[in-house]
Amino acid sequence: MVDVTLTSNQYGKAENRVVRVTRDTDRHDLVDLNVTSQLRGDFEAAHTEGDNAHVVATDTQKNTIFAFARDGIASPEAFLLRLADHFTGEFDWVSGGRWAAEEFGWSRINDYDHSFYRSASETRTAVLVRDGGTDTMISGFYGLTVMKTTQSGFVGYPKDKYTALPETEDRILATDIATRWRYNTTDLDYDGAYDSVKNVIMTKFCERYSKGLQQTLYQMAEAVIADHDFIDEIKFSCPNKHHFLSDLSFCGLDNPNLVFYAADRPYGLIEATICRAGAPSADQAWMGVAGFC
Amino acid sequence: MVDVTLTSNQYGKAENRVVRVTRDTDRHDLVDLNVTSQLRGDFEAAHTEGDNAHVVATDTQKNTIFAFARDGIASPEAFLLRLADHFTGEFDWVSGGRWAAEEFGWSRINDYDHSFYRSASETRTAVLVRDGGTDTMISGFYGLTVMKTTQSGFVGYPKDKYTALPETEDRILATDIATRWRYNTTDLDYDGAYDSVKNVIMTKFCERYSKGLQQTLYQMAEAVIADHDFIDEIKFSCPNKHHFLSDLSFCGLDNPNLVFYAADRPYGLIEATICRAGAPSADQAWMGVAGFC
Amino acid sequence: MVDVTLTSNQYGKAENRVVRVTRDTDRHDLVDLNVTSQLRGDFEAAHTEGDNAHVVATDTQKNTIFAFARDGIASPEAFLLRLADHFTGEFDWVSGGRWAAEEFGWSRINDYDHSFYRSASETRTAVLVRDGGTDTMISGFYGLTVMKTTQSGFVGYPKDKYTALPETEDRILATDIATRWRYNTTDLDYDGAYDSVKNVIMTKFCERYSKGLQQTLYQMAEAVIADHDFIDEIKFSCPNKHHFLSDLSFCGLDNPNLVFYAADRPYGLIEATICRAGAPSADQAWMGVAGFC
Amino acid sequence: MVDVTLTSNQYGKAENRVVRVTRDTDRHDLVDLNVTSQLRGDFEAAHTEGDNAHVVATDTQKNTIFAFARDGIASPEAFLLRLADHFTGEFDWVSGGRWAAEEFGWSRINDYDHSFYRSASETRTAVLVRDGGTDTMISGFYGLTVMKTTQSGFVGYPKDKYTALPETEDRILATDIATRWRYNTTDLDYDGAYDSVKNVIMTKFCERYSKGLQQTLYQMAEAVIADHDFIDEIKFSCPNKHHFLSDLSFCGLDNPNLVFYAADRPYGLIEATICRAGAPSADQAWMGVAGFC
Repeated sequence: MVDVTLTSNQYGKAENRVVRVTRDTDRHDLVDLNVTSQLRGDFEAAHTEGDNAHVVATDTQKNTIFAFARDGIASPEAFLLRLADHFTGEFDWVSGGRWAAEEFGWSRINDYDHSFYRSASETRTAVLVRDGGTDTMISGFYGLTVMKTTQSGFVGYPKDKYTALPETEDRILATDIATRWRYNTTDLDYDGAYDSVKNVIMTKFCERYSKGLQQTLYQMAEAVIADHDFIDEIKFSCPNKHHFLSDLSFCGLDNPNLVFYAADRPYGLIEATICRAGAPSADQAWMGVAGFC
Repeated sequence: MVDVTLTSNQYGKAENRVVRVTRDTDRHDLVDLNVTSQLRGDFEAAHTEGDNAHVVATDTQKNTIFAFARDGIASPEAFLLRLADHFTGEFDWVSGGRWAAEEFGWSRINDYDHSFYRSASETRTAVLVRDGGTDTMISGFYGLTVMKTTQSGFVGYPKDKYTALPETEDRILATDIATRWRYNTTDLDYDGAYDSVKNVIMTKFCERYSKGLQQTLYQMAEAVIADHDFIDEIKFSCPNKHHFLSDLSFCGLDNPNLVFYAADRPYGLIEATICRAGAPSADQAWMGVAGFC
Repeated sequence: MVDVTLTSNQYGKAENRVVRVTRDTDRHDLVDLNVTSQLRGDFEAAHTEGDNAHVVATDTQKNTIFAFARDGIASPEAFLLRLADHFTGEFDWVSGGRWAAEEFGWSRINDYDHSFYRSASETRTAVLVRDGGTDTMISGFYGLTVMKTTQSGFVGYPKDKYTALPETEDRILATDIATRWRYNTTDLDYDGAYDSVKNVIMTKFCERYSKGLQQTLYQMAEAVIADHDFIDEIKFSCPNKHHFLSDLSFCGLDNPNLVFYAADRPYGLIEATICRAGAPSADQAWMGVAGFC
Repeated sequence: MVDVTLTSNQYGKAENRVVRVTRDTDRHDLVDLNVTSQLRGDFEAAHTEGDNAHVVATDTQKNTIFAFARDGIASPEAFLLRLADHFTGEFDWVSGGRWAAEEFGWSRINDYDHSFYRSASETRTAVLVRDGGTDTMISGFYGLTVMKTTQSGFVGYPKDKYTALPETEDRILATDIATRWRYNTTDLDYDGAYDSVKNVIMTKFCERYSKGLQQTLYQMAEAVIADHDFIDEIKFSCPNKHHFLSDLSFCGLDNPNLVFYAADRPYGLIEATICRAGAPSADQAWMGVAGFC
């Protein structure tokens, strides 16, 4: 038989949909998470022998998530840290893992005490990768769709025999922002940090003329790192959601940037990673994250 | 050969994604629609003979939509009426049709003139069915997810040998509201009507104890019809999105309505149609609409 | 207060995912269904008063589905009939309802006794509508994607100022077939009928030149009704999935129907209902079915 | 201002849906791909200055894909290699990139020359990462749903206070197989290799009792590497699609592994990477691939 090596593995329970209501007073509140727990460590025998002596059941991981939610969920990141501490503390052979959460945002309807609607335009994300003594906390969001109706162009690119695109200094720029940023500490007001980063990104999208999505993403990244000394790295993976100017000349109409066709596929796809100069990298923690270069 | 009859048919171009920017001043605005146009009338020969002499090409229908958007989009409903007038006016054999639109809502980012984010929690819908001289305009929305963390129960239902559900006077009630209402006029401020109906529905969800989703939907329906004399009928098709109380007794914890598991499938499905007493029905206009009884 | 009427309603448990294994011998088999049960009848008080005395809990409906599966699932249609008989038989005030199922097809892997893969290209559907003493059984499928690489054209359509489409006598024709047919009996070999109808539809797609999707759908419909005297009506709702010839002239290449761009949106949408001449119609049973005219 | 570094970036056109028909004879054939092209190299100025002199437009990348398809598509992998050679050969500053394709499988309907249906249960994937002189070719598939109705159990796992799962030696095992494998050469019959790997994986799923999904995935991996000396590494990311035995005791029924509830979420998630012993690793090529540890 060939000689093979189990070079990496992780397993657990994915997408535990837990809703935690706070009802200490008549005015309720709620947190709505989608939590995934995956363990890493010495699981060799489960793979090679079918010996499950080390396999903390995925059902057990699920139960732990729901039981821990009983004590409250301060923030997605804090909740993931608690899970990591539990599993690495409880089981000798669990040396680390990957814990992730999505948070869905709700707002109160008018001023009612117990009624809410799902309001957030974006889904907030958090990933904690623990490898022995090292924690890497990566937060982010996806699904925030934004558009500039002007103040965007694309010129000066190389032309070859396959180039047909005309230059323009006035186009629609639209994208679904997907971003993740890496903290250099776990001692943090995560909710405050999230709001601040999101605000910087939104503002940078608006305030300057865009010569290309690359430039705009870079400006966002630079500002996020500049304004938050607890962030060392940020990644963006953003579609260029094309809004093509509708050619109405077939019926004798002009179209001075008024009517656009919003295309589905293909789309541009722009991805970039920006780091604080001199900060240590953490490539292993990013393995398995889709769509980031 | 057997004798068969073409009892109904409609055809056209679906899901034309048109974005119309208003840029009369430096402060832009935008409308984002997904428009479907389908024609009805004398299309027998296309089916039986492959004779396309009456078949206004679906590509032509698409072009018309984009060309008409050049003149502006006052509201989804007004835009559908203009399309209907054009196609039934231009082609003798087109006696009616079905025109539909979805509208995706955008909001300005901060106070910037040209920057927007997709903000609406729900997708607004409009359908116009024209049958000869009769227009039926149906507006609505879907995707508005709401939750009551208390003030909801379910008791008093019949018990048989397959009944295992315990009664409760305090549960989470959550649903994705999907609703459509039928106007009895086309001479209307559609945007104002939409905002008003949505507000009534949201308010009714909050303000009373719910003995069941049926009761709550009925209260919404009654209030919508009472408050808007231009609406004759309203339908709801709403999942009961179960949030099951997590049983934590396996590890010795109680759970006084704090931790819930948000289930995917199966889900309750509650559907109802409520009409103004004495108003004429319009069943044919509802054919082809999913999920309404 | 305004006077309103509850004109129709139905409620139940949707999307019960039940898998039934047959293991009478070492050679297993399985049926994989997604079952929805909705009751109709006297549920007025639940809506107007919140009185649930008639509301057979949706959880009870779910339990009944799983309990009945214990006895085996002969066919989706037979299973729906059994559910209908139970609910209308057991509860005086349940006068009818709507029961629906999707079936996902599996095939044996090689010749192994217990191993299967999900193989079916299409999803099979069944809907039973019972209204007092009348049963309407509608079967069908969706998601069967087919393509003709030639033997399809589109010519002879009217031209107006919005027409830009060139005529062609050789194009790709592609669609996702979604169809439902209505039986005029419930005493039937449903599995055999399904296979036969699907085979007729597939064959008709292939064997003749298509002058338009309307003609092709009509030919399918006519053949289905001609070949199956237990079918009175059939509906199709089919996208024209455009495969646009890629214009390669920008780089000096011709393209004799070799390279195509498969577009997402917009798409043509062709819908038709064909009935056996003289057969009674059953429009009420079709209410709530999406995408059929 | 803070000092930041653009540590990595890639950009291009994603999801180009190209269909290539072969019509040299009356008997046609077709290839249906979803192609993504992303370039890497010296794109610093585009990010920091908005200087697009190096930015080969994503529209140009799209055009190149369609133009190259004119010459035929031997296999997804061969097509990606040709794109890589073109972009790195044509533009000095393009030092590499990431090219990816999905292939959708079609089969002939009966024996017709021009008619096909989309038949493949799985979607085939290919990714080529070029970094200077190094090519890494990764092929795979996703979406192959398989089930064992017996010959699977889960016992011997550790128990703690959060453990509630009972041991079982007879359960359903079901998963959606998602796998990618890395070739150690690009001089290969890719289609033959694909069929052979898929066959090994399917066979290994069937032939032995499974003590856990970990063991089964490892057996697949070991066999794939053993049987194909041109493969150095394989990854699996597979859900444990839970089929819970339906508890029918509420109505007095037993359930000897006959009726199961197919759950959606949460699900187990088992991921593993297995390498040929001594083979060089290629971690950088895997960056950005979702769901692999």
